[in-house]
Amino acid sequence: MATEKWVFMVTAQTPTNIAVIKYWGKRDEVRILPVNDSISVTLDPDHLCTVTTVAVSPAFDRDRMWLNGKEISLSGSRYQNCLREIRGRAGDVEDMEKGIKIRKKDWEKLNLHIASHNNFPTAAGLASSAAGFACLVFSLAKLMNVDEDPSHLSAIARQGSGSACRSLFGGFVKWTMGSKEDGSDSVAVQLADEKHWDDLVIIIAVVSSRQKETSSTSGMRESVETSLLLQHRAKEVVPKRILQMEEAIKNRDFASFTQLTCTDSNQFHAVCLDTSPPIFYMNDTSHRIISLVEKWNRSEGTPQVAYTFDAGPNAVLIARNRKVAVQLLQGLLYYFPPKSDTDMKSYVVGDNSILKEAGLDGASGVENLQPPPEIKDNIGSQDQKGEVSYFICTRPGKGPIVLHDQTQALLDPETGLPK
Amino acid sequence: MATEKWVFMVTAQTPTNIAVIKYWGKRDEVRILPVNDSISVTLDPDHLCTVTTVAVSPAFDRDRMWLNGKEISLSGSRYQNCLREIRGRAGDVEDMEKGIKIRKKDWEKLNLHIASHNNFPTAAGLASSAAGFACLVFSLAKLMNVDEDPSHLSAIARQGSGSACRSLFGGFVKWTMGSKEDGSDSVAVQLADEKHWDDLVIIIAVVSSRQKETSSTSGMRESVETSLLLQHRAKEVVPKRILQMEEAIKNRDFASFTQLTCTDSNQFHAVCLDTSPPIFYMNDTSHRIISLVEKWNRSEGTPQVAYTFDAGPNAVLIARNRKVAVQLLQGLLYYFPPKSDTDMKSYVVGDNSILKEAGLDGASGVENLQPPPEIKDNIGSQDQKGEVSYFICTRPGKGPIVLHDQTQALLDPETGLPK
Repeated sequence: MATEKWVFMVTAQTPTNIAVIKYWGKRDEVRILPVNDSISVTLDPDHLCTVTTVAVSPAFDRDRMWLNGKEISLSGSRYQNCLREIRGRAGDVEDMEKGIKIRKKDWEKLNLHIASHNNFPTAAGLASSAAGFACLVFSLAKLMNVDEDPSHLSAIARQGSGSACRSLFGGFVKWTMGSKEDGSDSVAVQLADEKHWDDLVIIIAVVSSRQKETSSTSGMRESVETSLLLQHRAKEVVPKRILQMEEAIKNRDFASFTQLTCTDSNQFHAVCLDTSPPIFYMNDTSHRIISLVEKWNRSEGTPQVAYTFDAGPNAVLIARNRKVAVQLLQGLLYYFPPKSDTDMKSYVVGDNSILKEAGLDGASGVENLQPPPEIKDNIGSQDQKGEVSYFICTRPGKGPIVLHDQTQALLDPETGLPK
Repeated sequence: MATEKWVFMVTAQTPTNIAVIKYWGKRDEVRILPVNDSISVTLDPDHLCTVTTVAVSPAFDRDRMWLNGKEISLSGSRYQNCLREIRGRAGDVEDMEKGIKIRKKDWEKLNLHIASHNNFPTAAGLASSAAGFACLVFSLAKLMNVDEDPSHLSAIARQGSGSACRSLFGGFVKWTMGSKEDGSDSVAVQLADEKHWDDLVIIIAVVSSRQKETSSTSGMRESVETSLLLQHRAKEVVPKRILQMEEAIKNRDFASFTQLTCTDSNQFHAVCLDTSPPIFYMNDTSHRIISLVEKWNRSEGTPQVAYTFDAGPNAVLIARNRKVAVQLLQGLLYYFPPKSDTDMKSYVVGDNSILKEAGLDGASGVENLQPPPEIKDNIGSQDQKGEVSYFICTRPGKGPIVLHDQTQALLDPETGLPK
């Protein structure tokens, strides 16, 4: 087999996700077992996703990986754990057309090439590691004919990056913390698919930041070690919220969904602040966006928009429907207009058909925007140009899929090297 | 008596204070009874204080008050509670020189004029109500010959503004929450006077803010009603910290003092963030100052500076000694230089003799400052001009005193009206 020259490969796409009940704190650093359950919404992979091609060939002399075109080391324990677990579950593979036959026991001897690409900036703090590890595990499982359901795969992806386990499903996903020491019951399950609640529209404000951020890995370690509020949150607060959030999602109860999403985001950031030294992920722009949304929700009497922030200043805003999203975008662009040399189509990306509905597809749209009526002069009325880098419009989306179109593969089918 | 024309008056000065274990949350809104004990440092009244003149005369037709030169209403329950409590404890007063004799029972019929002035901007968020109510109660007690010790007076001042009770003493002060329903045991006591630990130097950065802040009264009410972390803090965290802080103060243990002060400030702000809607008192400038201090403390191995923030973005920085304070001020001025048209003596106020020690009394001092060695380019190296309005240099200070010099009185001794 070692002299053969074939390359066998699979390309897959996996979504990113945003937690609405947050994961913050591990009870086991090695196995990545959390201190509480969490719930997320999967984001539409059309706008935010990772594409990964995994290839195997007897010609490969070692495991190699390229992330966004640059070769990176696979020696870290997170990659090694995922590779080991997947290899241990590999099955027989046969491609009659190409005359390839790999038996279960061959996988231990074969080397892999992996190429991965995010369709959004890695540095933007948009859970790239979640989509990345989920896509690695999903594509390898397909390549190696691993006969496991997505929940079992999620327990493997979890060992690469905790939140990656939630990217194995579309729609609304719960990561159950589990209780077993080996982590085998710390898996993700789908609560509802993306069609269950398809009114929702998501707008992400990618916020500019001067400050270098604490990584979520070291941040949550420091919180576990020093915050006197974290355990109380994990044991007393989150379990009730998880039940309430499951109900809210089941019933498409936007008021409860918003109340839980916002308070849980704020409590996660409160625990960060209660850490020693304190961790600040949100900045003044994040705070201004929260004030904007809170004021609007109060003026409407019933919540229109939920907000949530991960380990960075970016705001993820979930509007109850398309009409609300149009108004939201108008308000956001009024307060955070693009710099004068920025084209609107590059300032609002993703599903930017919403720009037309907002009457903002023309050049002069933003300048004619009126301040939202509920906002008097409480929030500084001066322009906050440059505070937001850009907006991404998206929605709840589907889970991982295999991309059968070979033109989407990131590795050359002959050489197994990046295209 | 009603036809007599005499005016009898007393002028007093009362310090402000900064909590190092924070008060946040009332268990009784009317009596102002807190959910936990708190500990504060009294600030030197030479730099931050309230001066109040209280006058009584049979010629006054109603109670009146002027705050910083402007007449204000006394009808609020906070003023009424203080006036009622003090009047109820009034004694006989006799001024033989002026031929004035007021008997205990006369006080109910006599009206008061009160003039109060802060020697710092009220809007700067520097606990002006604490000094103000403490000074009101202290000066009235002197005027009316109230025979009560400062702890008893503190229980009256508490009903004007919770933290005011701690301004009845100099040095280091504990406000015991008490357990009685009538609040009679919710009083302040002195832990140590200002001479006990006179190495400490305090630098306050008055931070510019665009955002209108939530008042502490409504903020703490909302926290009590909505934060799921507040009760845990009050019941489980603070009691231990109070004991540790008392030990740290007793032993002048700066490392413990700093650790407790910083973590408690951060936890108070964490509870604010856990409130619904969330309350943000600190802004990006506050965060930058914290990062600066945390980095410095870590690089030195042992804490040099403690920070604490009240219900606003201003940083109160406590340096372990004068030498450290000089270095701290140099670092602060490097990162937050004055605007080019600002004179250094108006940018660093209070005890600005420290400017000379820092080599910054000349015009070109700031431009020649070098970045602190422990700070590489982690914190944005560009100038943060305008982010800090000014600095106040001060130290732990003494409690309330009567000012006998009539030129310091704020009311005219003939008319009883503001000078």
